[in-house]
Amino acid sequence: MRLLGEDDLEDLALGAAILGTGGGGSPTVGVLFAREEIRARGPVTVVELDEVPDEALVVPAAGIGSPTIIVEKLFSGSEALRAFEALQEYLGRTITHTVSAEAGGLNSVVPFAVAARLGLPIVDADFIGRAFPEIQMCLPTLYGISAGPLALADEKGNTTIVRGRDNHWTERLTRAACVEMGCMGVGALYAQSGSELKRSAVGGTLGLAQELGRLVREARADHRDPIAAALERLGGVRLFRGKIVDVDRRTVGGWTRGEARVEGVDGDAGSTLTIAFQNEHLVARHDGTVVASVPDLIFTLDSETGEAITTEELRYGFRVTVGASPCDPRWRSPEGLALAGPRYFGYELDYVPVEELAASP
Amino acid sequence: MRLLGEDDLEDLALGAAILGTGGGGSPTVGVLFAREEIRARGPVTVVELDEVPDEALVVPAAGIGSPTIIVEKLFSGSEALRAFEALQEYLGRTITHTVSAEAGGLNSVVPFAVAARLGLPIVDADFIGRAFPEIQMCLPTLYGISAGPLALADEKGNTTIVRGRDNHWTERLTRAACVEMGCMGVGALYAQSGSELKRSAVGGTLGLAQELGRLVREARADHRDPIAAALERLGGVRLFRGKIVDVDRRTVGGWTRGEARVEGVDGDAGSTLTIAFQNEHLVARHDGTVVASVPDLIFTLDSETGEAITTEELRYGFRVTVGASPCDPRWRSPEGLALAGPRYFGYELDYVPVEELAASP
Repeated sequence: MRLLGEDDLEDLALGAAILGTGGGGSPTVGVLFAREEIRARGPVTVVELDEVPDEALVVPAAGIGSPTIIVEKLFSGSEALRAFEALQEYLGRTITHTVSAEAGGLNSVVPFAVAARLGLPIVDADFIGRAFPEIQMCLPTLYGISAGPLALADEKGNTTIVRGRDNHWTERLTRAACVEMGCMGVGALYAQSGSELKRSAVGGTLGLAQELGRLVREARADHRDPIAAALERLGGVRLFRGKIVDVDRRTVGGWTRGEARVEGVDGDAGSTLTIAFQNEHLVARHDGTVVASVPDLIFTLDSETGEAITTEELRYGFRVTVGASPCDPRWRSPEGLALAGPRYFGYELDYVPVEELAASP
Repeated sequence: MRLLGEDDLEDLALGAAILGTGGGGSPTVGVLFAREEIRARGPVTVVELDEVPDEALVVPAAGIGSPTIIVEKLFSGSEALRAFEALQEYLGRTITHTVSAEAGGLNSVVPFAVAARLGLPIVDADFIGRAFPEIQMCLPTLYGISAGPLALADEKGNTTIVRGRDNHWTERLTRAACVEMGCMGVGALYAQSGSELKRSAVGGTLGLAQELGRLVREARADHRDPIAAALERLGGVRLFRGKIVDVDRRTVGGWTRGEARVEGVDGDAGSTLTIAFQNEHLVARHDGTVVASVPDLIFTLDSETGEAITTEELRYGFRVTVGASPCDPRWRSPEGLALAGPRYFGYELDYVPVEELAASP
């Protein structure tokens, strides 16, 4: 158990944005949001996975919708509270802990608002070990744990609760509500017991995000390469260094979709890297050859500062370094790949782990 | 209090289809559905409005979606039960009575399935006095009674609960879920106390539907004009007699929308009547002049049998008599017209009561 205060947020957001692989919403928005809450209500208690009682009722809070729109609409915090209240009312039970649904900029930090307001401890864990764009793409799905009843609230005062026949249906019906709400809501989902959580979650991701953020910050301060520091911690590889020359981005069905094209500089001069995304980066191709794909993590970092650039922030002219790192091993199982491998996203390619792709000539 | 059995259903459906003004789903489907239930579980208890205890928890069950698709998908009855269960779970209270949300073919009869299965009495009342296509278009809206939490269930096993900031938002969010479910679900909505019900409902519509059905059936048997019998009971007027020559119908946003064109016969030979509809008939124009509009009731009856033809059944060649009758007076208030007058549906015309239009030269 430890306390997490205002001063810890900067590192946390910096690191979580890298794990967010371009998605999960802007870390800047997340920090503004969480700082406000912690300033008003004091630091938040963070507990480790093994400190959670088996009979706890653990519920993540997560922004659901298009990050592009989340940035524009900047929610108030009351959405998360209303989603929690609606879910508690429905379950007839009191939520004892919250947790991040995914390791992504905004969604790493959204639970802090609920934690601060309701006095709940946050579990240092998440359900993906990165960010993913669809609700069923969480490890609990692999353990047969239901995403629904999923309570979704918007800033206008609307609430919906979806209990799909399976997690894919919970995604479909929640997405439809979210689009109607203006492509932005906050959800309370994947309610589960402490003992379920210990099996289904990725432990330590808040700590990892804070550490990543600290490493990048310290490297910068010491005039070392912040990207090398981050890649080393993640066991990742540097894929490409270049300048963004084209970004095609649109909001489709409640997601931010598109592709970015990067022209190489230095050792990569004369070649091109493309990154396809749906909220998060999905596939990176170097001169047409796949060099990394989901479920592995692909991140676009500012070449100078090591700061992660989200898919809604990608702009012409940015100097970026693209890196990739291995995902949680459960995503590499046949069931994991069926849920979030490249074919699920419509790419006719077999998944090859990023470290194998990097080792091949 | 009275019992309603299998033998009463035919008259009920015949009359309810007229009150449904072309919408509310096919009465044939409704009867098939309710007969099955009553056959298996015995007759249903019908109580009058003034017999309902003030502290009762009354919840209508209603098919929500496009009637065209409801006819194709013919639901199983378990949808309504699951919607009721989800709402009870959410409210933490037991529903004591059910009632029809609207006086329309299918939706007059859907509550019978719930009543039979759960052993609930049905209140002889509805919330419109006719059928309307959108959820907020119910008299309880005029009394500040919330349509949400609205539980919607489909045949696939999905359930959603919507609590909109107002009844328009409950409509929007429920419609989005319904479209995703395949344009068809069964909802439990407008939960209210017995004392609220006594203010907000139209009393006696089940009895009226049964009586209308009986009048039409008896007139037919006696070789009298069944349409005259129905119009007399409703204080309505005969607008037109003709043959359908064109129907333009499409499923849009979860509704059946379109327009039918009728060429006159007999006294109406040489002239044309058009009827615009959105699930229900909205505006009737005789050679371009409005002769009836929402919220008044407009019905299309088979000229021979007096049987109502729903908007999804309208076909080229049908010989029809178009009639109209006054709506519940509360719909004629400024608030009622704002909710369901012609301008709400996009028609640039001021509402004039059908009896005034009929009296004008």
